[in-house]
Amino acid sequence: MEAEQRADWGLPFLLKYENIAWFEDGIVRILDRRVYPQRVEFVSCRTHTEVAQAITDMVTQSCGPFTAAAAGMALAAWECRNETEAAQRAALSQAAETISHARPTTVSRMQRITGGCLAAAERAWAEGKSVPDAIMAHLLVSNNKRYGKVAQMASHLVDRIPDGGRVLTQCFGETIVGMMLREARSRGKDLKLFCAETRPYFQGARLTATVCSEMGFETTVITDNMPACLMQTRGVDVFTCAADAICLDGSVVNKVGTFQIAICAKYLGVPFYVTGVPDQEHPTGSSVRIETRNPDYVLRAMGQRTAAPGVRGWYPSFDLTPPELITGVVTDLGVYAPDRLRDYLSAADIGPFEMVI
Amino acid sequence: MEAEQRADWGLPFLLKYENIAWFEDGIVRILDRRVYPQRVEFVSCRTHTEVAQAITDMVTQSCGPFTAAAAGMALAAWECRNETEAAQRAALSQAAETISHARPTTVSRMQRITGGCLAAAERAWAEGKSVPDAIMAHLLVSNNKRYGKVAQMASHLVDRIPDGGRVLTQCFGETIVGMMLREARSRGKDLKLFCAETRPYFQGARLTATVCSEMGFETTVITDNMPACLMQTRGVDVFTCAADAICLDGSVVNKVGTFQIAICAKYLGVPFYVTGVPDQEHPTGSSVRIETRNPDYVLRAMGQRTAAPGVRGWYPSFDLTPPELITGVVTDLGVYAPDRLRDYLSAADIGPFEMVI
Repeated sequence: MEAEQRADWGLPFLLKYENIAWFEDGIVRILDRRVYPQRVEFVSCRTHTEVAQAITDMVTQSCGPFTAAAAGMALAAWECRNETEAAQRAALSQAAETISHARPTTVSRMQRITGGCLAAAERAWAEGKSVPDAIMAHLLVSNNKRYGKVAQMASHLVDRIPDGGRVLTQCFGETIVGMMLREARSRGKDLKLFCAETRPYFQGARLTATVCSEMGFETTVITDNMPACLMQTRGVDVFTCAADAICLDGSVVNKVGTFQIAICAKYLGVPFYVTGVPDQEHPTGSSVRIETRNPDYVLRAMGQRTAAPGVRGWYPSFDLTPPELITGVVTDLGVYAPDRLRDYLSAADIGPFEMVI
Repeated sequence: MEAEQRADWGLPFLLKYENIAWFEDGIVRILDRRVYPQRVEFVSCRTHTEVAQAITDMVTQSCGPFTAAAAGMALAAWECRNETEAAQRAALSQAAETISHARPTTVSRMQRITGGCLAAAERAWAEGKSVPDAIMAHLLVSNNKRYGKVAQMASHLVDRIPDGGRVLTQCFGETIVGMMLREARSRGKDLKLFCAETRPYFQGARLTATVCSEMGFETTVITDNMPACLMQTRGVDVFTCAADAICLDGSVVNKVGTFQIAICAKYLGVPFYVTGVPDQEHPTGSSVRIETRNPDYVLRAMGQRTAAPGVRGWYPSFDLTPPELITGVVTDLGVYAPDRLRDYLSAADIGPFEMVI
């Protein structure tokens, strides 16, 4: 079932970069994006707490943790498969708690995933079916529904990019990146991609640039100190990125660096489109907790220490971009001004366990 | 002579980081800043063309190339020491041409250095002295005069930083960094330094942070996508950097990334002080040729490839910051508004072969 359903979308990036976590035979295997594309390695988790730890450890990023979370719930169900139904229910609830708190910035989104898995488990118990299988089936249906919405989003985004357009990206927007390129290709638009490398993990250089290049588009990596210079001297038609959280006031939480590219884009007259849908859980940016991560990462590059002993590091994972810097939020239903995001919620039909990013 | 004259300033950073090129016994040794501080290695040049190539290859950066240029001129004089005076004069003129064009962005500054060396050679011939020795003596006198002016510059800069002030740096400002810290220390001001790592060579992480930390100040490295987030969430009192060229219209050429930090500093209300003196050779920014360098550097970090095969890179060495983003230019004679730089030239006493940065 897995292969066909994923193949429905016919997208190499979905197979290679998106469905990067899978539960099978008591093991969740997660593509280790920390070393990709230099090495293609998988982290094997034999308990759901190992899955949560892998998510905490940034083995996978962007949408990856959400697929990993559901796979982790299937593994949790498998771990307690010989218990009573009541004990399984308690264990799964506990697993949902552990997994959804693996990273503080995404707790509410994770709870949508784990909540959907718990509901799938309830149906399986009621119907006497395998709970791990039911959770994995739920994951596929849920992801496919998400892909459909992201495809609509990509269509609205590509509307805003001219033929031959120069597109600046930040970090790794996951599904939307490939969907945007597929949509552009189908319309005969030849985009040129510029990917900020996104220190300290180089997601832009390693992941986004790889997807864009493998899909046949001209792709150029720049370091994180070059976006303004690029916009000033070579010109950029659109700056676009996905978001870790889009607050109802129009402020956006995304990989650190987004804020400063947005400031520069505004200064230089380059439109900035954020893809994704508003988070009902975040009325304003102030309710989002920004993770700071191990400062040691900032003092290293590709595993090599850069700074002398005694020097400190600081590593805020995300930053907060205010609505005044955002041209539009590109949703599955169209492009919304950042101060009109509640209109999206009125128009959208989002299930309680559904995630659209 | 060398050691005592340098020791006059009593600054470890001068000995370790500034006088990083030296001519002795027919060899110019240049500290290889591409691998420092992980490894302390010197590139040995046995001809002045090797010195020019080392400058082109970024073996040394910031003020390093100017000291290397003078040492290269001493080596050129040594190479032709057995020729007639006329042949030596022709050879030295040719060497001055080769060395001063090692990097396109700094030709006019380099010509000040090589011009001073040629004048020193003329005096040596007139007095029947060793030309290589005369050029090295000129280098010491010239550098010591420069240190004096940079110390004045540092004093004006520290005037603008509050006690306990948080200072954001970009790339490696060389002498001014250590002078600023020495001045702050002498006044009892305890600065906290934040150094942008400065991809792709990591000069901020490797050089600036090392100097600041070794001089006993709390030093934190951030990646190049973090300056705006730092200013927004933790606060910065002053953003400061040196410049590769300060044009008379107040626009500034400096390591790529300066422009975007300046945009963000303006947006967030952080004052931005550039240290250095105006270049008479550059009336406006449009007369500065911005180097683009080997794009492969952008696709690597600390020697490791980051992007997949087929992905391109783009590496502009410098960018151009317009005067509207600059709070003041900190010279040896005081702080000038960027639209008042001609006033500095009227007031300053700059010898034809002198360089103040």
